[in-house]
Amino acid sequence: MYTESIEMVEVAPRDGLQNEKTMISTDDKVALIGRAIAAGARRIEVTSFVNPKAVPQMADAEAVCARLPQRADVTYIGLVMNARGAARAIETGRIDQLGAVSVATDTFAKANQGQTSQGSVAAASEIIAMAHQAGKTGQVTIAAAFGCPFEGEVAQARVVAMAEALAKADPVEIGLADTIGVGNPAHVVSLIGKVRAAVPHIPVRVHFHNTRGTGLANVWAAIGAGAVTVDAAIGGLGGCPFAPGAAGNVSTEDVVYMLDRAGVGTGLDLAELIAANHWLGAVMDRTLPGMVARAPRFPAPKD
Amino acid sequence: MYTESIEMVEVAPRDGLQNEKTMISTDDKVALIGRAIAAGARRIEVTSFVNPKAVPQMADAEAVCARLPQRADVTYIGLVMNARGAARAIETGRIDQLGAVSVATDTFAKANQGQTSQGSVAAASEIIAMAHQAGKTGQVTIAAAFGCPFEGEVAQARVVAMAEALAKADPVEIGLADTIGVGNPAHVVSLIGKVRAAVPHIPVRVHFHNTRGTGLANVWAAIGAGAVTVDAAIGGLGGCPFAPGAAGNVSTEDVVYMLDRAGVGTGLDLAELIAANHWLGAVMDRTLPGMVARAPRFPAPKD
Repeated sequence: MYTESIEMVEVAPRDGLQNEKTMISTDDKVALIGRAIAAGARRIEVTSFVNPKAVPQMADAEAVCARLPQRADVTYIGLVMNARGAARAIETGRIDQLGAVSVATDTFAKANQGQTSQGSVAAASEIIAMAHQAGKTGQVTIAAAFGCPFEGEVAQARVVAMAEALAKADPVEIGLADTIGVGNPAHVVSLIGKVRAAVPHIPVRVHFHNTRGTGLANVWAAIGAGAVTVDAAIGGLGGCPFAPGAAGNVSTEDVVYMLDRAGVGTGLDLAELIAANHWLGAVMDRTLPGMVARAPRFPAPKD
Repeated sequence: MYTESIEMVEVAPRDGLQNEKTMISTDDKVALIGRAIAAGARRIEVTSFVNPKAVPQMADAEAVCARLPQRADVTYIGLVMNARGAARAIETGRIDQLGAVSVATDTFAKANQGQTSQGSVAAASEIIAMAHQAGKTGQVTIAAAFGCPFEGEVAQARVVAMAEALAKADPVEIGLADTIGVGNPAHVVSLIGKVRAAVPHIPVRVHFHNTRGTGLANVWAAIGAGAVTVDAAIGGLGGCPFAPGAAGNVSTEDVVYMLDRAGVGTGLDLAELIAANHWLGAVMDRTLPGMVARAPRFPAPKD
């Protein structure tokens, strides 16, 4: 019934860390990326090229990029909000794919990137065009697609209209992000169905936060509805500096645990991910939100 | 597509509390039951009638029953493992329904109730017969239906055969319990489909633990597969004294949040449940696992 495999994007180095108060060293960020690759990650959101005053944790974007492993089989994604960020990302010579963000509501678009929602669609389209001109690929995520921390419910028709407008820029995919973790599986199935009907040639990626415990339910529903790529963060870290109450991304290891056991391939190694969770927890000096890393292994290893 | 409503069973007073090291007072247990009723719960697992040396937290079973609110519209369930427990529950005069437990593996059956798996089926059948003789209803839960802490994977055919055997005792429903939280949505859909095909006249209840983050995904999948009743515990408390690594039940308030927003009715009031979580957290002097009670309200209340 279900698909045999999906693709995952590891977002811990960017979305996982961006909201952390304690500065993570460039060494640790590079080590985290190395661990993700060792666990099988082949698409990784490595950093964002944004104003370091707004997001201090990402101030070392260029330094991280300079130390990315030379891997032809890994796609490194840099998140950018505008042409200036896109130029910085391209300038590194190490970013394979630009990730743009369009926001579904004006209030959140203003808080997140000082634009209207429509302005954020125009900016994303420009970013994707810049990627193409530089010989890179570009993709876009529609933030607050399932609800806005300021405006509340977000009409599905609004998100579909944004997807139609963004599709004209020819992104490799469109992401639907539940930035504040308010989505539910019925909403997920409905919105993905509508977006796929509106732009059938564009693959759908999903990005869920587990703020209210529904993260994995939404992932499962999204895959059933035809999403082909899932964002997740090792450890379940995450949050948004501009979205009050946003909490962790779905944890990569929890998603992989569920999908492994359900027979859906991800290309990732659960034991390596759990080890990465424990390593990252030691770096952060706290227990991370991901749950499978705190539970006994099942089935128990045969000695 | 989805069902319009499901039934929930509140299990916090029994499964939620049974593994707590600190003794909860009878006053607080009765208050918890009162809060569940105020939130709309109409089936509540109020206690278990087991050996107080094995499960000290449930030693006040008779005292709790003596103080249950007189409510013709609420079904009070007492969990029992054998004829002795059934007789105690019936003797209180306040238990409406006996809940029996059959265990899918011999090793866990032995640890949980000193029986073989087959012995636990016979015991459950006897308990249900005693319920009928006393003018009560009886139901049964198949524990470790999705995996065993000792034996690992559990064959679906074994659970189906148990359901067929148990159906002869005419329980009001058969529960499928993921006692240690290792289920995944594909397994859930498959097993429920097989059980429904084998005993189509018996409603299926599900009981999930969120040990590895998959709890709500399993609930959603189970409802889609035709389960009509869902166990959950206010606060997401829970565990099993005889199942190493078992962690909390799915949280009632998280399940209700997801289902409310997905348009599936439960008859429960989310705000009351969140208040009950906060009250219970104060009683236990810690933050409880349930997540929606720790997140901002969405949509934000209109002032």
